Amino acid sequence: MNAEELFRNIQKKKSYLCIGLDTDFSRIPKFLLEKEYPIFEFNKYIIDATEDLVVAYKPNLAFYESMGAAGFMSLEMTINYLRRHYPDIFIIADAKRGDIGNTSRLYANAYFKTLNCDAITISPYMGFDSVGPFLESKGKWAIILALTSNEGSNDFQQQKNKENLPLYKAVIKKALTWGHVNNMMFVIGATKAQEMQEIRKIIPEHFFLVPGVGSQGGKLEEVAEYGMNDRCGLLVNASRSIIYADGTNKFEKAAREQATVLQKEMELTLRSRNLI
Amino acid sequence: MNAEELFRNIQKKKSYLCIGLDTDFSRIPKFLLEKEYPIFEFNKYIIDATEDLVVAYKPNLAFYESMGAAGFMSLEMTINYLRRHYPDIFIIADAKRGDIGNTSRLYANAYFKTLNCDAITISPYMGFDSVGPFLESKGKWAIILALTSNEGSNDFQQQKNKENLPLYKAVIKKALTWGHVNNMMFVIGATKAQEMQEIRKIIPEHFFLVPGVGSQGGKLEEVAEYGMNDRCGLLVNASRSIIYADGTNKFEKAAREQATVLQKEMELTLRSRNLI
Repeated sequence: MNAEELFRNIQKKKSYLCIGLDTDFSRIPKFLLEKEYPIFEFNKYIIDATEDLVVAYKPNLAFYESMGAAGFMSLEMTINYLRRHYPDIFIIADAKRGDIGNTSRLYANAYFKTLNCDAITISPYMGFDSVGPFLESKGKWAIILALTSNEGSNDFQQQKNKENLPLYKAVIKKALTWGHVNNMMFVIGATKAQEMQEIRKIIPEHFFLVPGVGSQGGKLEEVAEYGMNDRCGLLVNASRSIIYADGTNKFEKAAREQATVLQKEMELTLRSRNLI
Repeated sequence: MNAEELFRNIQKKKSYLCIGLDTDFSRIPKFLLEKEYPIFEFNKYIIDATEDLVVAYKPNLAFYESMGAAGFMSLEMTINYLRRHYPDIFIIADAKRGDIGNTSRLYANAYFKTLNCDAITISPYMGFDSVGPFLESKGKWAIILALTSNEGSNDFQQQKNKENLPLYKAVIKKALTWGHVNNMMFVIGATKAQEMQEIRKIIPEHFFLVPGVGSQGGKLEEVAEYGMNDRCGLLVNASRSIIYADGTNKFEKAAREQATVLQKEMELTLRSRNLI
């Protein structure tokens, strides 16, 4: 999928919502635990209840890896289910990978070919040869960590270099020499809405993947104000506030309600900007 | 395992060698492809042929993830095999993970509990809350990327801040406020032997995990000269130069030969430093 197709999906769905499938075995309703693949079953309910409200799903790999091979199987099943039933959905492997070139190439193979995701999140610490292999598959995306939503983002990302440039801006500027608007996005936390305005000056056209709305305290309104561009340019992720909105066997209805609140707000914003 | 126990294993084995299990389906001998889990079978041959020469094995997660759930199963089987037959071996999950706190906690669970590894490599880009959860399990280790062996390490790791400190040194100094010599090591590439002397001034006592010897061009002699301390303080990894030394059905003998060359050189160095 390229940036134009993603924008068209946003217009069609009137939404730039991404739901994080941070599916935690200890938090899913009890009646699902009897199934052979409870994590996949939970995801299936969430997906069927919300797919018309979202443009993307973002399985967080940690939740699957923590279950071992069975977790990995649930991930594969979830992605296959999405591909079969909702082929227009953008699938992001939230993996935060990055390694020397020959290893990054294998990760790219794992997430773009074996698992058939559209995008993968990447940690830039190891530099160009750790990112490059994720930029070589047409229609696939590297989503590079720039300024994350967590408190620890102050430790290194905000550290200024000799030219008074914080590391996250140095990462963005360097990454612009590696990829383009159709194969590269950046992670900018929703808790950093103030910095978004600054970042838009450096990358007016790129998509941002914005985590941190909901449980982490980021505000959708601010994200739209400071981050939106003339092709939307935003994928805003919410995870726990949607998928764990209710712990009973009505969880998928509660998830739909929470997703609807965000989608409606997004629709209003898109209208007010004349993007739909 | 704590640092003292690791040092005692180094003395017993007369080796600080770690073999990287970067097991690539396309590079393993043909006769193994008939087995149900060829990657596990390959690892088993390599392990049985080399375990008396090494103190650690380091499966590189990318190689297993690229095979999907079957690859993850091979990883579990490899670790279970090591735990059952060679309980003193130090097992490093080369995963380069790092995410917001609640997610890093799950990764710690995946690698320390589900998979029962001793250590995991961590990318520090997201700061303290992304590393902290890996420092909370007694006897388990976070191995933090500092100065890696690849060319891209120049992009950000060497970038100097306003105090003229390169990022990798800022990472090391900050990390010292999070953990100690019994739960934290640092990745310092073998291709950066010159910088090791400098780094030893900041962290005289911590273990270094040193990749990049062999195929990547790092020299064992220089690593020992600049990186060794009075408890050895080094785990030197070689992967491809050992496990793919020969592509025939004598691959494990060739692997043993290559590992022996390194072990013998390590033994001489340890003797010359009066560490054995």
